[in-house]
Formats: sequence, structure tokens, C-alpha cells
Amino acid sequence: MPIRVTVWNEFLHESENAVVKEVYPDGIHETIARSLREDGELEVATATLPEPEHGLTAERLEATDVLLWWGHKAHGQVADEIVERVAQRVHEGMGLLVLHSGHFSKIFKRLMGTPCSLRWREAGERERLWVINPSHPITQGIDRFIELPNSEMYGEPFLVPEPLETVFVSWFEGGEVFRSGLTYQRGAGRIFYFEPGHETYPIYHDANIQRVLRNAVRWAYNPAKPWKGVAEAPNVPIDQARERIEKKGRSLHKAGEAGYR
Amino acid sequence: MPIRVTVWNEFLHESENAVVKEVYPDGIHETIARSLREDGELEVATATLPEPEHGLTAERLEATDVLLWWGHKAHGQVADEIVERVAQRVHEGMGLLVLHSGHFSKIFKRLMGTPCSLRWREAGERERLWVINPSHPITQGIDRFIELPNSEMYGEPFLVPEPLETVFVSWFEGGEVFRSGLTYQRGAGRIFYFEPGHETYPIYHDANIQRVLRNAVRWAYNPAKPWKGVAEAPNVPIDQARERIEKKGRSLHKAGEAGYR
Amino acid sequence: MPIRVTVWNEFLHESENAVVKEVYPDGIHETIARSLREDGELEVATATLPEPEHGLTAERLEATDVLLWWGHKAHGQVADEIVERVAQRVHEGMGLLVLHSGHFSKIFKRLMGTPCSLRWREAGERERLWVINPSHPITQGIDRFIELPNSEMYGEPFLVPEPLETVFVSWFEGGEVFRSGLTYQRGAGRIFYFEPGHETYPIYHDANIQRVLRNAVRWAYNPAKPWKGVAEAPNVPIDQARERIEKKGRSLHKAGEAGYR
Amino acid sequence: MPIRVTVWNEFLHESENAVVKEVYPDGIHETIARSLREDGELEVATATLPEPEHGLTAERLEATDVLLWWGHKAHGQVADEIVERVAQRVHEGMGLLVLHSGHFSKIFKRLMGTPCSLRWREAGERERLWVINPSHPITQGIDRFIELPNSEMYGEPFLVPEPLETVFVSWFEGGEVFRSGLTYQRGAGRIFYFEPGHETYPIYHDANIQRVLRNAVRWAYNPAKPWKGVAEAPNVPIDQARERIEKKGRSLHKAGEAGYR
Repeated sequence: MPIRVTVWNEFLHESENAVVKEVYPDGIHETIARSLREDGELEVATATLPEPEHGLTAERLEATDVLLWWGHKAHGQVADEIVERVAQRVHEGMGLLVLHSGHFSKIFKRLMGTPCSLRWREAGERERLWVINPSHPITQGIDRFIELPNSEMYGEPFLVPEPLETVFVSWFEGGEVFRSGLTYQRGAGRIFYFEPGHETYPIYHDANIQRVLRNAVRWAYNPAKPWKGVAEAPNVPIDQARERIEKKGRSLHKAGEAGYR
Repeated sequence: MPIRVTVWNEFLHESENAVVKEVYPDGIHETIARSLREDGELEVATATLPEPEHGLTAERLEATDVLLWWGHKAHGQVADEIVERVAQRVHEGMGLLVLHSGHFSKIFKRLMGTPCSLRWREAGERERLWVINPSHPITQGIDRFIELPNSEMYGEPFLVPEPLETVFVSWFEGGEVFRSGLTYQRGAGRIFYFEPGHETYPIYHDANIQRVLRNAVRWAYNPAKPWKGVAEAPNVPIDQARERIEKKGRSLHKAGEAGYR
Repeated sequence: MPIRVTVWNEFLHESENAVVKEVYPDGIHETIARSLREDGELEVATATLPEPEHGLTAERLEATDVLLWWGHKAHGQVADEIVERVAQRVHEGMGLLVLHSGHFSKIFKRLMGTPCSLRWREAGERERLWVINPSHPITQGIDRFIELPNSEMYGEPFLVPEPLETVFVSWFEGGEVFRSGLTYQRGAGRIFYFEPGHETYPIYHDANIQRVLRNAVRWAYNPAKPWKGVAEAPNVPIDQARERIEKKGRSLHKAGEAGYR
Repeated sequence: MPIRVTVWNEFLHESENAVVKEVYPDGIHETIARSLREDGELEVATATLPEPEHGLTAERLEATDVLLWWGHKAHGQVADEIVERVAQRVHEGMGLLVLHSGHFSKIFKRLMGTPCSLRWREAGERERLWVINPSHPITQGIDRFIELPNSEMYGEPFLVPEPLETVFVSWFEGGEVFRSGLTYQRGAGRIFYFEPGHETYPIYHDANIQRVLRNAVRWAYNPAKPWKGVAEAPNVPIDQARERIEKKGRSLHKAGEAGYR
């Protein structure tokens, strides 16, 4: 059975900015989608901000195993309701890849619980992403590092929780460092943040970057049945306790009453 | 210099429910505040939901080093703006102790990024909190476990991220277990979730529970200067790079322009 | 390509103790091996303490993707050299499942860096293993918990590092709790500690326990090429630095000299 | 009550190598000890490899709250018995700071469970240690980074477990990165690995480096009573179980018998 992937893109810069339009004439999402399709077991769709419900209807998310997220200038335009819908799906088990400037997206901040802030500089400087764990599924097929001749600098401190795994750490020509590949788990969902991807450089055309994305999609895929009730807090009735107990003490709730939220 | 503590309480059950009123005639917050004051270096204030801005004005939060949070039936009445204000202060370095039913508070879910759901049963059953690390600052003065004759059962799975440290794990008479004391770091702020505290039982009158809370306040206190700009993403101008670089490649932002959010 | 599994057993109790002999007439390793073979993609061999090199020759370990370890009364008889050989293979990427009393094996203590101590009681009491993450690969096919009518009690504190993931937490009839399923990563190798398995009870005949072991073998399998040089610290010559540098300052080592160990 | 610190140094290079002798005429340990004594609450002693029992007698370790470890060329000469003695004290609660080439010391590998390998180059190149968490106790008084004009390059991958906290990440002139400040917990003991410190450069004379070491000593100090029995696995007799149980099933151990090790 194929892994069902949706690539989400803000898709504004590509029409508004001549440089970006030239680098990504069909939009960043199409370039990424094409490269993912090189893995024949991935079934890849796209969605963008301007579409109704940003292309992320309940049906679309139901049919998505792994979601990729690229946004930059319009984080604020993403409806809170859609953000909650995506968060719920991640908690149920959908994988999520957050790319580059997506560090400041509502969905990433929602799932991290931190500001997700960092330092930055757009100087087209050299970046070298060092592989921290060459045996990690995400780094398979990558040599000891990836070099990008032109990249936007993202610098520490990066305000995220300590990760599950540090997969890449980056060196920048101007003197900074950045933890550029980090994994997290939130509920049943796996999350990978991957730093490269500034829209004025052809980074998503790079074979190594494409390889990392294909690897990460497979890593983030959770084949378990979606955990639909992940956000519910069910009462366990006394007569269903595994050990026999009897009611003691005084009570707030009447028998069978739902809990507060 | 004293540690400035604010104990926040929803303070609804104590007026509406005869049982709770009897156990906590002045409110849960006053019982907790009194017990914290046994540590002479703690300067303890209280705040409640019904007060303007829920008692959590910008000034009050500025003057708070560690905040305790108890809420149950009115999580939804806490204004989103106040939640963001508290989250920002945690990111800046304010400590936070989330108590019992506070697992479903907006602020805890905001900081965890997960549903924070669990299973529960109000049967007044016996709970035994086992100390996982007897050398942790939070467990000093506690024997190998704490026994509560009557407690509300909270059972796994508890939908939180894997913690920094597992401090307590609980055994319940009815057959369940729960990770009942967990630590987290979010930005510069330390967070401790502590499970006991159902309002119809005199749990905050228990000497061991009080001891844990006093310990946890000291553990959560960060003496570093508040990190005011924790959520900002400043540009690092090219001429301020530590290594000399020159602009290369093409550009989205003009020199000195602020980044998107 | 099949996953190559080796089940290692001390294999002493089975000949010395009438009770154990009755429960595991062919040895614990054979019972486990048979149950693993229900997964047709696992190619399962066994090895025991009395064999030359404890059955863990360099060749055997080369041909092992995942190793299971059961030992109890003869941890001290395992040669240090074999322990180092196993540790090296784990660092290179071999998976390791440490079972029950293996908590005190040399190899587990070697990989954890902690005493791996705990409390215990052999009373044949009831144990209930709660699933903490029902979407984890290791818990697939398992309901909310596993119940064992007779088990040896293992109690907290369990002196291991905070795990990568807490997969199971156990409830015991006598009042204790235990983190009974924990994952770790050491170098390229994945480790799963699984607590049930006392030799006088038929625990490895339990269908749920067998399912967990099959799941865990697949989870621990790292398909990446073994990381042969994982323990080496190679010098990076100045003329092979990715950024051009020239020697500055004073020196301890001559050019091309190997580092100290 | 003062914090009792012991600075351990191999103390071989300082007599054998003219360059090192000039930089550290009294030995690296004396330079570090002097700088620690600027904090009047630290009571600082030293110990070296050539002393009987390497200066780390049981009495000395009993009287040590925090141990610093510098070694490079003679890791193999440290007696295994002394390593176990230090490990036991760390598990009991003694803090440990492992410096620079100590990454390959027996004690660090013993406590990490991994090879602790890395890449290196002695070119006197520039290093910049970026502060990842400016609110961490270890980074107080340090600006956004520490710059060292001449340093030995240590490069990733660094074969250690994912840390509790990433405190520093380093940038090197030749193009590499390194996680240069990492914290761990092992039993009751806190561990800080700090990468700078090559013996041919005056790194321990640097005011910022000295500040980090003073901060780290205070951070690693655990005021709790030493956990003497940390490595023991006591039996809990059936009649001392907190819940009343009776013996069921069959048994390996006789009542009151000690467990295997």
C-alpha cells in the first residue's frame, strides 16, 4: 500500500517575486512533489494556502499519511481551525515535515510549545549540513555532509524543545551554527524539522536535499491505525476497574457523568 | 532575595460544591499558599479566575518567578490572551507547576503541544506515588513513596511528550498506573506536572504533598534574568557576521528589512 | 531479505532446576526462537553460555541483525571480551533486546552506564503492563494492557538513564510500579529492555509477550550498513578541511600522526 | 557549606612536552584549580595520575562533591578499579565534568555506554562556541558565544547518547561543527562534557572558559545525601509488600535469599 503524501505550500512568493518565480516556476510544492514521486511507493498530492480551507479539508487530511509544510510570509493567514485540524491529525499519527521558514508557522509552534525563534541572514552564504547519525533512516544515501553553495543563514539559539534525535547540525560561512535536522514525537505523530529551503536559491532542486525529504517521509510514516480518540479523557467506571474496588470518600461527579474539559 | 510565587486557582468549586467547601474553606489556593509560606524564602501571592484578567495582569506576571496552576471545570473561561501572556513568561524563564486537573488547562496544552489526555475514575481509591529518583531536588525529604488513602485515579496513556525526567510514577488500587511527576523545559522556563490534588479529598493538606510543592517551586525557579526577546527572530546584518562574508546569490529581503512572522 | 536474529540464553536453570525444566524443557531460548519464527521474515538462531565463546563468535555476531539476551545467575561468567564484542556490534547498528533479569547483565550495564538496579519479589503476583503509546511499532496488536497472572515483581527505582521512549509501565499486585518497556539508542544500535520473563512462570508462552518480542525485533532492526568505524577517531588532515585553513599556533602531534586513545 | 571539588589531571604532557610546559608550568590542574577558587564557596583540591591510586582514594572521592577530569595520552593507564570507584560515586550523586580529550577516558565511555569517538585536527584554527540556552546555569555571564583564536578541531559525529540538554554547539574555521557542551544524568550524578581545552593553547587561561567551569561545578553539585545503595537490588519480602499478597506460583529463590548478580 502506498504512503499518501500531501505537500503544502503557501504559494505566494512564486507569483509575487520574480526571483522565486524563476527558481520555482510551478511553485515550491510542485518541485518537492516531483522529487518525492521518484519513490514509486509514495502517492503525492499538493495543497496551497489560496485553496478553500487551504486545501486541507478534513477529507484531504484523512487521506494523508505524511504532510510537508512550507510557509514564510503568510503564517498569520492560516486559519486557526485548520491548524487545530492538522494538529489533531498529527496526534492521531500523521507524520509532519516542517521545512525552512515553517519554523514560524502556527502548526510548528502549536506542536512544539515554544517560540521556535532563531537568528537569520540572507547573504547567499555557504552552508554545510553535517550528518550526526549516519545510520539514521533519514540520512541514508547521504555522505558525511551536504554542502549548499548559497543558503540563508539560520542561527542558534533555536527556541525548540530538546529533540528526540539531532540528525543534522549546520555550519555557516558567516560564523554561525544551527541544529538543522531535528526529530520529535507528539502523540502518535512523528515530526521532522529540516532547515534548508530559502526560496531564492534552488535548494529543493538539490539531489541530496531531495533524498533527505524522501527518506524523512518514510521515517515519519506511522502505519498504525489512526488514534482517533487521542484527545479524549474517558471515565473508567468503577465496575470496569481491573482490580475490584468499591467507592470510598466523597465525590464531585455523579456516576457515569462526563469529565470537565 | 525571596522567590516570588503566585498560586493560581480557578476557585469555583469551593463556592459551588459543599464537599469542596468543607475541605478547602478558603479555597485550594489559600491552603497551598499557606504551606508554601513555611519556606521563609518564598514570597507567596494568589490569583483566581474571577479577578480581572484572572488576577494575572502583566505586572503580576512580571513579579512572579514561579506560578502554580489549579483549574478543573472552567479551562475554557481562561482568556486566550492571558494564556499567551503566561506562555511568554514561561519562555522567558518563569517556572510553572501544573497541578492535577490542570492537565487539561489551556496553558499546559499550549506548552506541551499534545492533547494531555488521560483516563480517570473518581472512586476514592488508594494511590501510591513511587519516587523514581530519590536524589532529585523535588523528592528531597520524601521517603520511597507517598501514600494517599483516597485519590482520583488518573491512568495511562497520558498524552504528553517524553519528559526531561520522570520523577514519580503512581500505583492505583483499581489496577492502573500513571506517570505522576514529570519535568519539562520550554524556552528558559522549567515546568513540573504533579498529578495528585482532587478537590474532594484533603490532598493539599498532606505534609508530603506540601513538601513536594515547596521543593518543586525551588527547582522551577530560574535566577537568570528574564529572556525578554525569547520569541523574536532578529536579522544579523552581513557586516556584523563574525566571519567576513559578502552578499552572494539573489535576495528576497532588502537590507535591514524585518523578517516575516 | 530476512532479518537475522540470535536468541542468547544462559541456559543453566533449565538443567539445574526442576521447575524451570518443566516450564522450558528445551530452554527459554528455544521457546522464544519458536515464537519468533512465526514471523516468516525472521531467520532465527540460538546461542548459549556453555558454548565456546558463549556461541557469540565474531562470525555469528556479524551475521546477527538483532540479538536477544536472557541471563540471570551467571552474568559474571560472561567473558568481558565477548561483552565488548557485543557492545561494538550494537554501536555498529545491531539491535538488542534485553529481557527480564538481563537488567543486571554485563552488556546492559555496559550500554546504559548506570547500575541498572531495582527492587524485586518472587511471589507469583499479578502484573499488568500498561501500553503507554498504542501507536508505537512495539505495541501493535496489543490491547490497552497485558495481564500476567503470575510474575516476579520488579520495582522502582530502576537505575537506568531516562529512556528515548517509555513504551510500557507495569502495575504489581503487591503495590509497586515499574517502567517495564524502555527504548534506547547507543551509536547506530537500538535497544529495548522488556521486564517480564521470570523462569518459573510460563511467560514466554504468552501470546501477547510473544507478539511484543516479534514487534520489538522488527523495531530494533537497522537496515543501514554496519558502521564499522564507529569507535574510531580519525584525524582530518589540514589539506582536507572543507574550508581552506593554514596551521596556526603550536602543536602536540606531528602531521599525519595518529591520536591518543 | 562549601562545595568540595577535585581537579584530576593526567599530568604527563606538562613534563614531557616543552610547549605544554610553557603554557601550563604547574600543570593544567593547577590552572583550573586556581580559577575555580575565585568562587569562594568552592573548596578545591587536585589529584593526578602518577599519585598512588591516581590520587583518587576512596577517602578522597568520599570527600569530593564534583570531580573534573582531564586526560589525553594515558587513558589506558588508569586502573579499571579506580574507574569503577569513580563511576560508583557518580551514581551516588557526585558531579563530573569531563574536559576535552577526556571524551576518550575510560570513565566517560563507562558512563555514556557509547564509543565517544569524534573527528579531530590540530591546526590552531578559530572556534566559536555558541550558547544554545542563555538561561542555563552553566552559561550565566557568557555572551552569545565564546571565541577561541586557536583551538583543536573536534568534529561530528560525536558518538554519545542524545543529551539531556545541548548547552553549546561549536563552529570551526575549517568547516566542521561540534556539540561542545552537553549534559547527562547517570544515577544521582550530573555530568557535563565540555570540549575546549587542547594543551598547546592557553584555553584554561581564558576568562570565559573559566567562568563556564565555575558555573558547571555549581550546576553539577547535588546536595542530596549520597545514594550509597544505588547499585543494590534488594529483595522486598512478601510480608513487607504495601498491599497484602500471598505467595502464588512456583519459586526459584527460597524465602529471604539474596538475588543473583
